Amino acid sequence: MIKANKYYGDLEKSYLFSEIAARVRRHSEANPEQEILRLGIGDVTLPLAPAVIAALHEAVDDLASAERFYGYGPEQGYPFLREVIAENDYRARGIDVSADEIFISDGAKSDTGNFGDILAGDLTVAIADPVYPVYRDTNIMFGRKDSMIMLPCTAENGYTPSVPDQPCDLIYLCSPNNPTGAVMSRADLRDWVDYALANQSLILFDAAYESFISDADLVKSIFEIPGAEHCAVEFRSFSKSAGFTGLRCAYTIIKKITLINDGNGKMVPLHDLWLRRQTTRFNGASYLSQRAAAAVYTPEGKKEATAAIQYYKRNAEHIRSTLSNLGMAVTGGDNSPYVWARIPEGYTSWEYFDYLLKNFGIVVTPGSGFGSCGEGYVRFSAFGAWETCRKAMALISKSRDQ
Amino acid sequence: MIKANKYYGDLEKSYLFSEIAARVRRHSEANPEQEILRLGIGDVTLPLAPAVIAALHEAVDDLASAERFYGYGPEQGYPFLREVIAENDYRARGIDVSADEIFISDGAKSDTGNFGDILAGDLTVAIADPVYPVYRDTNIMFGRKDSMIMLPCTAENGYTPSVPDQPCDLIYLCSPNNPTGAVMSRADLRDWVDYALANQSLILFDAAYESFISDADLVKSIFEIPGAEHCAVEFRSFSKSAGFTGLRCAYTIIKKITLINDGNGKMVPLHDLWLRRQTTRFNGASYLSQRAAAAVYTPEGKKEATAAIQYYKRNAEHIRSTLSNLGMAVTGGDNSPYVWARIPEGYTSWEYFDYLLKNFGIVVTPGSGFGSCGEGYVRFSAFGAWETCRKAMALISKSRDQ
Repeated sequence: MIKANKYYGDLEKSYLFSEIAARVRRHSEANPEQEILRLGIGDVTLPLAPAVIAALHEAVDDLASAERFYGYGPEQGYPFLREVIAENDYRARGIDVSADEIFISDGAKSDTGNFGDILAGDLTVAIADPVYPVYRDTNIMFGRKDSMIMLPCTAENGYTPSVPDQPCDLIYLCSPNNPTGAVMSRADLRDWVDYALANQSLILFDAAYESFISDADLVKSIFEIPGAEHCAVEFRSFSKSAGFTGLRCAYTIIKKITLINDGNGKMVPLHDLWLRRQTTRFNGASYLSQRAAAAVYTPEGKKEATAAIQYYKRNAEHIRSTLSNLGMAVTGGDNSPYVWARIPEGYTSWEYFDYLLKNFGIVVTPGSGFGSCGEGYVRFSAFGAWETCRKAMALISKSRDQ
Repeated sequence: MIKANKYYGDLEKSYLFSEIAARVRRHSEANPEQEILRLGIGDVTLPLAPAVIAALHEAVDDLASAERFYGYGPEQGYPFLREVIAENDYRARGIDVSADEIFISDGAKSDTGNFGDILAGDLTVAIADPVYPVYRDTNIMFGRKDSMIMLPCTAENGYTPSVPDQPCDLIYLCSPNNPTGAVMSRADLRDWVDYALANQSLILFDAAYESFISDADLVKSIFEIPGAEHCAVEFRSFSKSAGFTGLRCAYTIIKKITLINDGNGKMVPLHDLWLRRQTTRFNGASYLSQRAAAAVYTPEGKKEATAAIQYYKRNAEHIRSTLSNLGMAVTGGDNSPYVWARIPEGYTSWEYFDYLLKNFGIVVTPGSGFGSCGEGYVRFSAFGAWETCRKAMALISKSRDQ
């Protein structure tokens, strides 16, 4: 008799963003006249950069031509893209990453979610609380509900997870953090790399928001930390760095030197396992998305991507300063597109979500959706239009003035 | 200590098509003057249809516009695409499938490979031999190496798998078949559906090649068989029907009525589980690919897609008749893009692969790469250019004349 993966029964019913969408839909239907100001989901709103658009039109024309048609590409991604990533995002910063250590995919959500496929089931997992729900939910799907060590991230520790007292096999780190906007310092990351080396752990480092880091002394890649090449995998995405949420393109770095116990005691390259997974269960990212991504590394592409990031950073700074001026405790928003705000006493996160929605049409993300330590907070996203952001902050400011 | 999924150690080292690519590369480097005639991998070669190209340019322009920008889409796919699929591929043929029973994805390889995520680990699995390697390899990855029932497909049974004597939980069927090109009859499929209903099995029906079916009495969808709505999932793809191998777009049908034991004895909708999987581990197919796919259903798109299929079918017919005239036993090639040919005595499939490559520069796929019953066969693909196909058949014919 056919049976389902029983661990799906351990999942909470609704995915956070679906629930938000449903509440907003119900509210809009009941109040069609009220403008909805979306500062909730981390979706970009600026159109794609001209350099990217030009590359896309060219790439479409390739597919119209018998001579320049591209069918199946390499599952690992086209060398033309992997080369410019290695050069620009790593070697130019003095980080040793080669093109064949890069795997192009359709998204960091897929990669972080799928990575567990190549790992053993009976692992202990360290996950921050609050956390991007995908890490938690996919580990529940893999049957690890009772072997997760939650690392509280609160005002007390600057929203940065500390290494646990006990050994732990698999560690998820996200910096700049979703949802808190906190950025781990070089010293924080060194602690984690040292811990991973001492405990033979693997760090999955989600750097999807690295392009928002502007402080020169902050780390953009885990591979800037000595020893990380033996114990870490890095995930990056064009979704936020170049507005590709609708295009789908991301990449994952696995150093060829990284070894893992194959489950039978033999040490094997982690790179080989992921390559086997991807060649068997994935057929490469779209040629169009890969051509678009390569355009991000042209001189015009870089300039335009930077301008978009600056636009969102202006939003973030405005949200941060407005809330801060109102006396709310906030973190993030400086080297991150997210502002994590302590809500007034007497509200749960969902109640405050409803309060903002009903009174101002403002959509945020309730902190409790990211874990129990997120209760008492909401996440503001800076990915909206400046005008949306300005209106929302004006409404909140005005309500406090009265 | 971090450990890998130990079942990866049960996989054979090399993925079939990577090995072929490596042999061709070595041969080409040693014989740079010899033209390579590719009839191996099932990749399309015709450029995308004009209607699809026009839709892609339009969709690119959407992404260049602040007003028409699309970011994250619904994980299940855009309604504009799911609606036209339901209407054209199902309702127009009298098959009851609604838009919300359709899941858009980046490929049928991903979907058939990932489907095991929502199923229990300890299942018995029936898989044809020869078979598309993804079914076999992903089941090995899920730890089912020793619980696979291989169903021999040979000349004796018309290359069609027969229902086994014992109960079996999960069944992979592919029709038109990859690699044999055989198409299951309505009666064959009825046997399997009856078997699945009697044994509470689930059929994963891979219909990636359905657009090659021209005989009116053949079944295109498993849902044409009464009862299939309780025991089957169907996978389709734009890769072969519209040449999207480089674009990445496919879809999977899960009827809302299909129930599955949740692993704890409760019957739950299979649809809910896959929706949960996709919303958690996938972020939707590219907006561009979905717009392109929708264009396949316009009047021009349909006409152009049909013309491309006819082009490949002409290749298939030419391969089939040439080999047949040479006295080789062949199957497929009529309602399928693949011709499955019995090779001369004295060769293994890989030896015959090497023989065709070294003597004529012809690349085919060795049958043994698809399973032990594939030994003694090679697969010819009709997805090459007509000129390639014609040259290859002329070389083979000539060699036999001498």
